[in-house]
Amino acid sequence: MKVEYINPFIESVYDLFSTMLGCQAKRGDIALAKPGGALQEITALIGLSGRARGTVALSFPEPTALAMVGRLLGVEMDTVDETIADALGEMVNIVAGGAKAKLANENGGSPIDLSLPNVIQGSNYCVDYPSHTTWLDVPFSSELGSFSLRVTFQMDKKGE
Amino acid sequence: MKVEYINPFIESVYDLFSTMLGCQAKRGDIALAKPGGALQEITALIGLSGRARGTVALSFPEPTALAMVGRLLGVEMDTVDETIADALGEMVNIVAGGAKAKLANENGGSPIDLSLPNVIQGSNYCVDYPSHTTWLDVPFSSELGSFSLRVTFQMDKKGE
Repeated sequence: MKVEYINPFIESVYDLFSTMLGCQAKRGDIALAKPGGALQEITALIGLSGRARGTVALSFPEPTALAMVGRLLGVEMDTVDETIADALGEMVNIVAGGAKAKLANENGGSPIDLSLPNVIQGSNYCVDYPSHTTWLDVPFSSELGSFSLRVTFQMDKKGE
Repeated sequence: MKVEYINPFIESVYDLFSTMLGCQAKRGDIALAKPGGALQEITALIGLSGRARGTVALSFPEPTALAMVGRLLGVEMDTVDETIADALGEMVNIVAGGAKAKLANENGGSPIDLSLPNVIQGSNYCVDYPSHTTWLDVPFSSELGSFSLRVTFQMDKKGE
């Protein structure tokens, strides 16, 4: 996976914050995610398929998840429940959908499809991925807390 | 999601056992998965997109995962490592790929694409899904141990 492929996903996170959460997210350095490395308490992920196959994940500490969904819905959230899971699933859907549109514009066509989001919660888990693929990990900070974006995909036929 | 949509996935599990693991899997009763219900120690999942959007998951207790991968590779496995994660990811890929082919044959076309598999490991986690969707849960038993299949998807335009 080429590092520049992650840019549309990063731009989508910025868009999500500026259009839906009324604040800015700031990214840190892009790094390779460690295989088997623990994620944060709540991870929303969605599959990509078609010309690019892979996964997009947003991983949140619980306070960030509560603050982001609270801001989105305009109410104070204090427990992780179905509303939180739905809203975080929708956020990863928006980030992946925005990146899909940007990638389609760049490549003339709409080669990527999205699956439905899943939201993983737990105090002790990790998410592995096929060992021949790499995940890029991008930490973000914002006034609603820190979180991270992880993306992996393989392009069909050209690139990796 | 209609219950009969799960049949191609169940048949794919049977095929995986008979062709690659040299034994039979036997299914129990299909049930609705409980939202937020805990899965077993290791869950391999893959996204579906295209005409049907959703997720297919295989969830294993650790001893079943070790026995299945050991049988597949013809060696005794005693630790959950990258090899196990890769092999379980490949199994969910085979199950989803087989069901995709069966669904395409039934509907005349190849409407479903697969993302890359992810493998979740942990002692305490759950996988949530959008609250407007349902997951069907199918328990299986085999001489390699018990495990379960979970499938959710929404068909575009027709069906649910």
